Amino acid sequence: MKKLINDPKNVVDESVAGFGLAHPDIVTVSADPLFVARAQGASQGKVGIVSGGGSGHEPLHAGFVGFGMLSAAVPGPVFTSPTPDPIVAATLASDGGAGVLHIVKNYTGDVLNFETAADLADAEGVRVVSVIVDDDVAVKDSLYTAGRRGVAGTVVVEKVAGAAAERGDDLDAVAAIATRANANTRSMGVALTSGTVPHAGEPSFVLPEDEIEIGIGIHGEPGRERIKLEPADGIVDRLLAPILEDLPFASGDKVLLFVNGMGGTPLVEQYIVYRHAAEVLAEKGIEVARSLVGSFVTSLEMQGVSLTVTRLDDELTELWDAPVETAALRWGR
Amino acid sequence: MKKLINDPKNVVDESVAGFGLAHPDIVTVSADPLFVARAQGASQGKVGIVSGGGSGHEPLHAGFVGFGMLSAAVPGPVFTSPTPDPIVAATLASDGGAGVLHIVKNYTGDVLNFETAADLADAEGVRVVSVIVDDDVAVKDSLYTAGRRGVAGTVVVEKVAGAAAERGDDLDAVAAIATRANANTRSMGVALTSGTVPHAGEPSFVLPEDEIEIGIGIHGEPGRERIKLEPADGIVDRLLAPILEDLPFASGDKVLLFVNGMGGTPLVEQYIVYRHAAEVLAEKGIEVARSLVGSFVTSLEMQGVSLTVTRLDDELTELWDAPVETAALRWGR
Repeated sequence: MKKLINDPKNVVDESVAGFGLAHPDIVTVSADPLFVARAQGASQGKVGIVSGGGSGHEPLHAGFVGFGMLSAAVPGPVFTSPTPDPIVAATLASDGGAGVLHIVKNYTGDVLNFETAADLADAEGVRVVSVIVDDDVAVKDSLYTAGRRGVAGTVVVEKVAGAAAERGDDLDAVAAIATRANANTRSMGVALTSGTVPHAGEPSFVLPEDEIEIGIGIHGEPGRERIKLEPADGIVDRLLAPILEDLPFASGDKVLLFVNGMGGTPLVEQYIVYRHAAEVLAEKGIEVARSLVGSFVTSLEMQGVSLTVTRLDDELTELWDAPVETAALRWGR
Repeated sequence: MKKLINDPKNVVDESVAGFGLAHPDIVTVSADPLFVARAQGASQGKVGIVSGGGSGHEPLHAGFVGFGMLSAAVPGPVFTSPTPDPIVAATLASDGGAGVLHIVKNYTGDVLNFETAADLADAEGVRVVSVIVDDDVAVKDSLYTAGRRGVAGTVVVEKVAGAAAERGDDLDAVAAIATRANANTRSMGVALTSGTVPHAGEPSFVLPEDEIEIGIGIHGEPGRERIKLEPADGIVDRLLAPILEDLPFASGDKVLLFVNGMGGTPLVEQYIVYRHAAEVLAEKGIEVARSLVGSFVTSLEMQGVSLTVTRLDDELTELWDAPVETAALRWGR
């Protein structure tokens, strides 16, 4: 295992500490219980938004804390859900009197712990509504999931919900926006190599030098099939077809096309993937109205990408375009 | 070789095409001769800024084309300088009547080809001034370089020069800012693994599973030494010491601290590196006034990082903070 780390058991604490040091204008880090909140504190009168989950997917979630997006993020151990305690603390710290939305990727541990935390926060007088993200079309049920997994589409849900909260929508309205974004979002990924969980020390799975895994999960969970490595355009076709069939997307739709790097795949390859995905959508009469390319929901140093397509309506487009000022997404303010 | 590419000889063309499709509001791509320019065209009355060099370092340079930074970027073949022709075309397209600054990383091929292009543009009536970036303290002279190499500090030089041009400085003033930024910037990198040039098909160099290369170049050129893999903090010490001694940086200095990923190293590790680098600077009484963390000057899928430290004065700080709107850096507008 070759990584730029110190003691494997300190990876998350040290990385989050470095994140806090690098972005003091945007975030503040609570070391114990561990969570990341906006430097400015909760916005009075506005809905707070908290997300979180296992670490190893950076910049998700802490990179999305800031104006126009999350109020706080709760990083668990690598690929392991945070316990309810820090989620409760982050929730209370995010309440500006209008309640708090939990955005939870659909993994059993996350769902359970966020549910417990929501109950505890409720008991403290903070109303919590939860929205589950389950955008991955690759498989139904998985290693850590009943139902579909939540993957890169989480970025879209967090962005539009954050914008809705920032403009002053109430908790039910923000939850409805998040639900609508999730309902209109589909993703699927591919792995060329596996990441290595630091305290495990060995790759999570082994792919032969000439094979790739279609439909990979962001924790290295099995996908749909292993196939021989083929040109990027063919791989894009394999990812896009199930995404487009599933919603289904149709000619005339306006969409956000999001190419997400898995951590070890550089931009030069991500844009090759983007090119063909945009071509395929154009052929089908689907208009790419917005785009995002970069490594936003990673799986440690895994090489691979995922594709996410979100069907946009006017309101979702407006919320996507709204100003955002976080470490990982920043525009328009 | 496992990459998300099609024919290795089309990597640059397809990636740049994808880049253009993804960011039509920011850039426009000229396919032949190949260069990337601002979607809005040259800014009348303002100095144009053109950079470029071999591909494989994305988002450098095309990712920095846009308001407040570059006017145009010229991507060569992977790790190979562009020829003078596209540089001339990009230069002419960037002239708004106030002349054009070339920002050139110090590699023999780039320096020669930009020089030729500057002469040709001059002959067309466009005044060109060139600034060479040579921030890498690792080695004196290298595989493709006489003198020091230009590496991640290029981002800083391009950002502040772009801001100076945007506020209306004349060509000599913009060149002076770029020169000052370079003079106050020092960098050094480390590789854990090698990238693979697509048309070569084999890694550029081979590091045993327990070794790393200190002082690596962004094309995999040899650094200072190969050592056994050690904890991240020790590696940071080895990179920072020669950087700080070189300028030298001193207690009381205000600096920009930039941790740059080499392409295959995820953010979770980059922030562990940032944490200790910030600690070391704090111990030395050097104030980290600004920060940047991310993969901005890469070497294909190389695993590793570089550290860059720039000594800031008030004007450089103001220019760093000025609004920028490019695919890879965006804030404040």
